[in-house]
Amino acid sequence: MKEFQLIEHFFNSRAQSRRDVELGIGDDCALVQPAANKSIAISCDTLVENVHFYPDIPPQALGYKSLAVNLSDLASMGAEPAWMTLALTLPDVDEDWLKAFSTGLFDAAEYYGVSLIGGDTTRGPRSISITINGQVPTGTALTRAGAKNGDWLYVTGTLGDSALGLDVIRGKRQVDTEYNEYLINRHYYPSPRVLAGQALRHLASSAIDLSDGLASDIKHVLKQSGVGAVIDVDLLPRSPALTDSLSETEAFSYALSGGEDYELLFTVSEAQKGALETAMAHTGVAFTQIGQVTSGNELRLIRNGERFNLTNIGFEHFS
Amino acid sequence: MKEFQLIEHFFNSRAQSRRDVELGIGDDCALVQPAANKSIAISCDTLVENVHFYPDIPPQALGYKSLAVNLSDLASMGAEPAWMTLALTLPDVDEDWLKAFSTGLFDAAEYYGVSLIGGDTTRGPRSISITINGQVPTGTALTRAGAKNGDWLYVTGTLGDSALGLDVIRGKRQVDTEYNEYLINRHYYPSPRVLAGQALRHLASSAIDLSDGLASDIKHVLKQSGVGAVIDVDLLPRSPALTDSLSETEAFSYALSGGEDYELLFTVSEAQKGALETAMAHTGVAFTQIGQVTSGNELRLIRNGERFNLTNIGFEHFS
Repeated sequence: MKEFQLIEHFFNSRAQSRRDVELGIGDDCALVQPAANKSIAISCDTLVENVHFYPDIPPQALGYKSLAVNLSDLASMGAEPAWMTLALTLPDVDEDWLKAFSTGLFDAAEYYGVSLIGGDTTRGPRSISITINGQVPTGTALTRAGAKNGDWLYVTGTLGDSALGLDVIRGKRQVDTEYNEYLINRHYYPSPRVLAGQALRHLASSAIDLSDGLASDIKHVLKQSGVGAVIDVDLLPRSPALTDSLSETEAFSYALSGGEDYELLFTVSEAQKGALETAMAHTGVAFTQIGQVTSGNELRLIRNGERFNLTNIGFEHFS
Repeated sequence: MKEFQLIEHFFNSRAQSRRDVELGIGDDCALVQPAANKSIAISCDTLVENVHFYPDIPPQALGYKSLAVNLSDLASMGAEPAWMTLALTLPDVDEDWLKAFSTGLFDAAEYYGVSLIGGDTTRGPRSISITINGQVPTGTALTRAGAKNGDWLYVTGTLGDSALGLDVIRGKRQVDTEYNEYLINRHYYPSPRVLAGQALRHLASSAIDLSDGLASDIKHVLKQSGVGAVIDVDLLPRSPALTDSLSETEAFSYALSGGEDYELLFTVSEAQKGALETAMAHTGVAFTQIGQVTSGNELRLIRNGERFNLTNIGFEHFS
């Protein structure tokens, strides 16, 4: 009972209610009031210790990231975050851990306007499962299907930083001291592109968030849209931290296949390019055109107009 | 990849869509269209192996029960089931297990009209976390608060069967052969009182589902309603299987404190008693008046007009 109260203290007390939450934590269900003419976007992601994160991850980062990866799913649909439930399994009740984890979780929740409306805490091997609910005007959600031959291919932010950050954390890579914190933060505290996703409604023909790595995730878009794509690897946005720390071919490899960037990959028709610039400018999120949608069903990488062969530069690094 | 396809085969293929599911499994989020003038009821329950279930539970029962316990939360609010997400963590991918588990899950889903709209399967110690969404006309949801001094106290079905069923399964109790299957099924395949919950809207002043046992769960109602209650233990509905297998005092103990019955406990004012009979008759669910709400904040048990002392009859059995 004391343990239960401890958990309640850290979670229920900071579970601030949005105005559309009629009944929050504390009954058999929560009650929320959906907005008129909006669809609800729902996604569920589980993080399991030793599978999705190492036991030494700072609990604050784990709390933040558990929500951020779910918010990234909403972002890729163009949905506005609303409510979440949290299923938390813990091997023990550790006050310091709970305090740090909940701080990270609520930092993200408050920044992105999400109310924690329910959950379940159980004893067992550490895992975090969040189901997120967002809202999107009916008929405007972005999906993986819809990319058309000739559409332009874009990504937000820079690619590969998170994977390099993980290698730094695990001691597999050493980088210049000035880049250490940046890279580690890109791994622990990704920025779900929630505003960018909303700005892309009515503009993008398809969208997906990058969790497994560009070269892997784009295949879902190609398959579900029934198209191919060409990417010019020289156009891939790479941070100074990435390019200064790695050889050119290594940097390509991280940018193409490093996971957990949580940037958006999206396609825009030629006719919408101008509107895209205007809409994205308001979000302050950088975005880069990296290639084009083609007919067929193949992903081609090119450099200087020639086919770029990934297998020669250690693409298997992450597999 | 082969494993992933196997999981997809068992879950995605049977995830039949309701008409209000705009986009089901297969993108970053699902999209659903909430009904006008309804609130969404959301609840989340996690079952962890060796905490909530034994490793020898038949996987079909586990699949059914994982959803049933969530449906019971919707029932207690008077909400109509709609959509669910499933976070499944498994130590290995076992085709027979997946087939049986998904059969049990979808048997319940199809019976109660729930669409599986998303989920996440991860490798790790076995656990099942379901977030369920239901709909209820705004302003009509039943909660734990609202019981008033003088209201009558009711439960659906019979109490204690599930706990006795578990004792039979674990070899702690032997019962007459004719009751074996009934009791085991009451433990493995509880009946969430979804229709009864909906019938109680506008009628009950409070409701809760019985997961931890009557004597424990009623305290949530008393606390959140700011009332006390008196229960006449002779009125507690007990099945022939329970009364024939146990001494009278043991049967009281199971009925009062055996968990996992997933029946509803609810309160109804004197003025609504007649309407209650009519409304419940349509659902075919048996219900029994077991006591009355009082002022104060105490739970009193009585028998033959005298105080009934639980501690003398082995109430600690389940603690």
